[in-house]
Amino acid sequence: MFLDKEYLFTPGPTPIPNRVNVAMSKPMIGHRSAEFPVLLEDVATRLQPVFGSDNPVCILSASGTGALEAAAVNTIEPGDHVVVIVGGAFGDRFAKILEAHGANVHRLEVEWGTVCQPEQLEDFITSANYQVKAVFATYCETSTSVIHPINELGEVTKRVSDALFIVDGVSCIGGVPADMAGWNIDILVSGSQKALMLPPGLAFVAVSDHAKEVMKNNKAARFYFDLNRYFDAYEQKKSTPFTPAVSLIYGAQEVCQMIEEEGLDNVIKRHDLLKTMTREGIKALDIPLLTSDEIASPTVTAVKPENGKANEMKKMIKDKFNISLAGGQQKLSGEIFRIGHMGYCTPYDVLTVLTAVEMTVKAIDGKDVLGAATKRAQEVWSEHV
Amino acid sequence: MFLDKEYLFTPGPTPIPNRVNVAMSKPMIGHRSAEFPVLLEDVATRLQPVFGSDNPVCILSASGTGALEAAAVNTIEPGDHVVVIVGGAFGDRFAKILEAHGANVHRLEVEWGTVCQPEQLEDFITSANYQVKAVFATYCETSTSVIHPINELGEVTKRVSDALFIVDGVSCIGGVPADMAGWNIDILVSGSQKALMLPPGLAFVAVSDHAKEVMKNNKAARFYFDLNRYFDAYEQKKSTPFTPAVSLIYGAQEVCQMIEEEGLDNVIKRHDLLKTMTREGIKALDIPLLTSDEIASPTVTAVKPENGKANEMKKMIKDKFNISLAGGQQKLSGEIFRIGHMGYCTPYDVLTVLTAVEMTVKAIDGKDVLGAATKRAQEVWSEHV
Repeated sequence: MFLDKEYLFTPGPTPIPNRVNVAMSKPMIGHRSAEFPVLLEDVATRLQPVFGSDNPVCILSASGTGALEAAAVNTIEPGDHVVVIVGGAFGDRFAKILEAHGANVHRLEVEWGTVCQPEQLEDFITSANYQVKAVFATYCETSTSVIHPINELGEVTKRVSDALFIVDGVSCIGGVPADMAGWNIDILVSGSQKALMLPPGLAFVAVSDHAKEVMKNNKAARFYFDLNRYFDAYEQKKSTPFTPAVSLIYGAQEVCQMIEEEGLDNVIKRHDLLKTMTREGIKALDIPLLTSDEIASPTVTAVKPENGKANEMKKMIKDKFNISLAGGQQKLSGEIFRIGHMGYCTPYDVLTVLTAVEMTVKAIDGKDVLGAATKRAQEVWSEHV
Repeated sequence: MFLDKEYLFTPGPTPIPNRVNVAMSKPMIGHRSAEFPVLLEDVATRLQPVFGSDNPVCILSASGTGALEAAAVNTIEPGDHVVVIVGGAFGDRFAKILEAHGANVHRLEVEWGTVCQPEQLEDFITSANYQVKAVFATYCETSTSVIHPINELGEVTKRVSDALFIVDGVSCIGGVPADMAGWNIDILVSGSQKALMLPPGLAFVAVSDHAKEVMKNNKAARFYFDLNRYFDAYEQKKSTPFTPAVSLIYGAQEVCQMIEEEGLDNVIKRHDLLKTMTREGIKALDIPLLTSDEIASPTVTAVKPENGKANEMKKMIKDKFNISLAGGQQKLSGEIFRIGHMGYCTPYDVLTVLTAVEMTVKAIDGKDVLGAATKRAQEVWSEHV
């Protein structure tokens, strides 16, 4: 390319706003200073509406997987029976984390690219001949770009069992609605590098009062991810038990400011628009999508070109047109490419990525589709203005 | 203060060079991109001399405590007998991590402010009626500002036992020499926010081939801190198993560049000079130091004013003179204050902090000591030019 200007459209990490970079470059402060508790409380409470949480959000210095492990080891003891909804690579990861810690994992497998229906979960729980300690679900399954009906799955879980309902929201929180109490979520986990416009390195755990009680009595071995230590440090001195990633927390403060300026409702509407523009644009090129509209994620879209051209297209989009997309994972490897449209992403960005897809289709298939996807996406946008 | 210019002299977090902030503000990249493996390998190998490691250094997205836990859970199984040298808050933390994971912890307690002598360790191991799986030592015990004779402790460990020798180097690596093979260290851990001039959020684990073999066969429950996953990801594709803190790793690359430009030997000599200037300056004010010169850390100095004036002095130094120091921890709370002099720290910075100490002594005790500490520190400096 004639200019090394970066175009990052992976479903995490995502681009960082310059004002967030500036915030992260503030002079370092000690985490035992008088300043740090003010910063931590500010961010922990301003994140509450983003997570739909009644409690300040717990901030870990780790990647999202670390927070998933924290959710697991603070609620589950070896031998406990748990249900894990697995419809992609991240449901599978949740199951593997639980298996690594000795849980009896019962996988509720759904076809990749589809979601778990509430009735499926109800059948699975009610037909179980064991006591279900917790149900683990993935809000946005990044690997397939579906969004699970978390509110309905939470309703079922609480109606037919006493299980905890624990949700991986890593690749969507900040771009979708969340209501922990209303949706019966006990723990909602996310990471910094997806819709929250930060570099990777922070992870978030929002916890209900009920889950907090369970954690207090949990005997599983843990230290760095022992959330009781985080709650104690926060409640006693608005601090963290171990050295926190201060610069990233400064960045998170700026992200809260940006979300409040735009308005959380508008942030969520924007992601919905980005999704529809992306999907309608791809459809206008006659390229199949992996998922149906009803279950499509507002933060990432999986494209499934025919004849296994996913990797060829992804490679050309990168090599000739300088746009980074993601490929398929595990059983979808080579079958799809994925466009992330979350966080610091506007309708212009979607038009940009669609332009590159058009040029790639023309280069590979010889079809003159230039302008087709972007025009359709513009139409969608204009309907929402 | 008339200007909000920050003066951070805590023993971590430490100030961040502007060029490191700039590096951390580079455009974000995907961790599954072609660019990331180049970055990771560059940093992992350029850190090798800093850790004195024969292998590329493993980079975790966590604080130093996370890396200590990684060292523990990858080598120790519940019920294993371990010896932990405890002479301060961080030796104590290492012991608590191991206890949380079910190890049989044998604490070799030494008086806070002193170090464990090789003979003490030899007696402790040889009189044990159990098989010692590992000896855990703290290179710089931040809470007391001593530096342990790691080379001698490693020699003893290997001469009288088959135990692993595992070292917490969090608050000194980057400011002191290290030679894993020569000193018989199996695992050497550090964090980003001390002598390595980075914000908190990265932790480093350097591992010998022997320790790697032990880890492969270790059955303890772990996931995010399972180092086998990190070694596999690195060996197979120079990547990480989970999303890495990319911006901090860009920062680490710039830190490697800075260390190479100064020269690692010079970095180590500079820290030794900063230590001597600080100690001689404080002595010139007739204020006692907690530790003797022979065992004093090059990265942090504990000052023990008489009549329990530590907190009063620390508070005035902060409130009137805008310099952040650290207090005493646990049993040294209120007894000492600590001056960090590591990482992005020059002789001028030591003169600055000594100036504030002088002004504080004058304000509290009425003694006219202005210039006394700085003059002595300048003398030390001039002897080293």
